[in-house]
Amino acid sequence: MADPFIAETRAILERTPGVLRALLSGLPEAWQEGRDTPDGWQPRDVVGHLISAELDDWIPRAELILEHGPEQPFPPFDRFAMLQRDRDVPLDTLVERFAELRATTLGQLSELVADEDLDRVGHHPTLGEVTLRQLIATWAVHDLDHTAQVFAGLSAHYDQEVGPWKDYLGILLRREDPSAVPG
Amino acid sequence: MADPFIAETRAILERTPGVLRALLSGLPEAWQEGRDTPDGWQPRDVVGHLISAELDDWIPRAELILEHGPEQPFPPFDRFAMLQRDRDVPLDTLVERFAELRATTLGQLSELVADEDLDRVGHHPTLGEVTLRQLIATWAVHDLDHTAQVFAGLSAHYDQEVGPWKDYLGILLRREDPSAVPG
Repeated sequence: MADPFIAETRAILERTPGVLRALLSGLPEAWQEGRDTPDGWQPRDVVGHLISAELDDWIPRAELILEHGPEQPFPPFDRFAMLQRDRDVPLDTLVERFAELRATTLGQLSELVADEDLDRVGHHPTLGEVTLRQLIATWAVHDLDHTAQVFAGLSAHYDQEVGPWKDYLGILLRREDPSAVPG
Repeated sequence: MADPFIAETRAILERTPGVLRALLSGLPEAWQEGRDTPDGWQPRDVVGHLISAELDDWIPRAELILEHGPEQPFPPFDRFAMLQRDRDVPLDTLVERFAELRATTLGQLSELVADEDLDRVGHHPTLGEVTLRQLIATWAVHDLDHTAQVFAGLSAHYDQEVGPWKDYLGILLRREDPSAVPG
């Protein structure tokens, strides 16, 4: 039986641009101001970070594994590159830029990776030995993690508007205290 | 200047069905099995809960505030009604059912609530006095909170697949320990 891993992973990777577009495209600016935590990221920062990862992370690392295996460690990845690079770019433009990049990287994934490559090994500078399968799985969960982060940033706009209901809204409580449990 | 509150809130409420459709429609079943926490909800439970709230919560409570003010407390809301009611309903059907209900409730919101009603007061059985404005704000944040919960449920499918990268993926770490901070 064929390994469903690549098809299943693509099912998430293919959806993320449409999810971000459905959520963020044309959204009033007031919703775009909040951060997922007081020192955290606005939705635009999250989309910018996803853009950075499409450019510098997933496909370059897959290529490194396939070409050099564990002998050449992954180069460092700048988690904050977007803060300068995308400073004046409107959120809608960032979402479309991400969608274009994702279409490209999904094409590259098809060309680069077959089932029999998934156990090939690379070297992560802090995590040590990792497989191509783990890299591709992480790509999908990284999408889910950061898209969820956008929702936390959006919620900040109504932190006060909900009044006493805040006690029941974990997404607001956790912005200030990660261990908070809704009442 | 007109109060932007209702229009801003609608901007979130209108987007949620499309976001859930973009994320969940046709998603392979393996992604649908996970829960946001070990005892938590699968994506289908979250969508079912959102359906319950469209039926029994937001509009009925708004009507109660407008018709009776604080004299008639909100009736209790069953947070688990979907577990039996939707047991055999496919996820795609639940998403479309939610989208239909949301279109209806947004129409009701337009008919029922004007800016000058937003300060009217109702009585919540445990929170006490609440305003219509707070109720409607909570409707939007409740959408954001539960949609984010869907992402956590989806991520569970790759809890092991990501290997050592799990240390960096808060969405996985928090499923087991709400206070976990990614490395």
